Amino acid sequence: MDKIRIIEVKESVFSDNNKDADRLRKELKEQKTFLLNLMSSPGSGKTTFLKGIASRLKNRIDMGVMEADIDSDVDAAAMAECGVKTIQLHTGGMCHLDASMTRQGLEEFGTKGLDLVVLENVGNLVCPAESDTGSVKNAVILSVPEGHDKPLKYPLMFQVAHALIINKIDVLPYFDFDIDKVKKYALMRNPNLKIFLISAKTGEGMDEVSSWLEEEVKEWCK
Amino acid sequence: MDKIRIIEVKESVFSDNNKDADRLRKELKEQKTFLLNLMSSPGSGKTTFLKGIASRLKNRIDMGVMEADIDSDVDAAAMAECGVKTIQLHTGGMCHLDASMTRQGLEEFGTKGLDLVVLENVGNLVCPAESDTGSVKNAVILSVPEGHDKPLKYPLMFQVAHALIINKIDVLPYFDFDIDKVKKYALMRNPNLKIFLISAKTGEGMDEVSSWLEEEVKEWCK
Repeated sequence: MDKIRIIEVKESVFSDNNKDADRLRKELKEQKTFLLNLMSSPGSGKTTFLKGIASRLKNRIDMGVMEADIDSDVDAAAMAECGVKTIQLHTGGMCHLDASMTRQGLEEFGTKGLDLVVLENVGNLVCPAESDTGSVKNAVILSVPEGHDKPLKYPLMFQVAHALIINKIDVLPYFDFDIDKVKKYALMRNPNLKIFLISAKTGEGMDEVSSWLEEEVKEWCK
Repeated sequence: MDKIRIIEVKESVFSDNNKDADRLRKELKEQKTFLLNLMSSPGSGKTTFLKGIASRLKNRIDMGVMEADIDSDVDAAAMAECGVKTIQLHTGGMCHLDASMTRQGLEEFGTKGLDLVVLENVGNLVCPAESDTGSVKNAVILSVPEGHDKPLKYPLMFQVAHALIINKIDVLPYFDFDIDKVKKYALMRNPNLKIFLISAKTGEGMDEVSSWLEEEVKEWCK
């Protein structure tokens, strides 16, 4: 396995992150690269999910992954092991990425030629929701063990997400998790939210979310 | 059930939070109140854990709970329902509490006469670790579904914690969670960490952590 490349990204000097994020989206449109910002709590299964997506989209889409973490390269090593082009971003203690940090990552990564770049944001349901990364779409993973009340407690995350991916449905029998309630609470925050039920571990539902993402990428890159 | 009191706490105007936190600890020592700062990811079981602690310590210790959240009063309502003196702190979008916000909560709560106050911090493994709340001890809950690699990925949280409470051990058979590894990784961060294995749902291990907390409170308040 190649050594993982680690980039230390720095917080933006721009005062207007929203404007910077719009500028980044425009650049991505021009170079025909779709950027997905993937957010969730720690341990909800982002990396396992991405491994499943990568295996389904290989030979169909050129994909790369930017793993953002406070520290460590645990996730990047896992992604690289399954043959996905990967870079590790270290946020230097920052709990989220802004558009400038995302751009630094993209530039160092060399994303020209890639159809899809997934930014695996820092595991956190609060701060990443507050900062537009310049992504084309935002997805949030919520895993069954976390509980169905999360859209009530972390409203902004569900408001800014385009897709809600409910993971670990294979363990539904062992938790008090009410799918109807979580859907209701999430749609209260965002009536346009696309909701998927998956188990990244068993593969259930992964084809549907993978097809959705492929369609989104093709629409953006055409 | 009484209506939950909600306090909007504001970020500190002090530039030196550490100094303010030390001052708060001194005040708590004088009034003989032990403050536990309880941290974790969203959905790791903080509230269920606290309900278990409250039922074990009632008639032994006067206890109150401050529930900190971005929004909502889901947890405070759950605590109040089981007869625990509870207040809801809203952080106005902030991802953690500092010492000044904690003091505002304590003052509004009226904690004189209480032996133990638990601050249930915002669900987040990143930001709460960076800010001393003035607590006497910090505890972090990590639940089995989150994975054993978390001390590698969120090092500061495990460094600042005095106790690591590994929750949801009742679902160990359904997850790839290695207890030896999580202990090793956590102790790498903090060799003095006290580690408990519990299931807040079934009650397993709750007596041990409850006894530990009672001892700590008695030591502080004597």
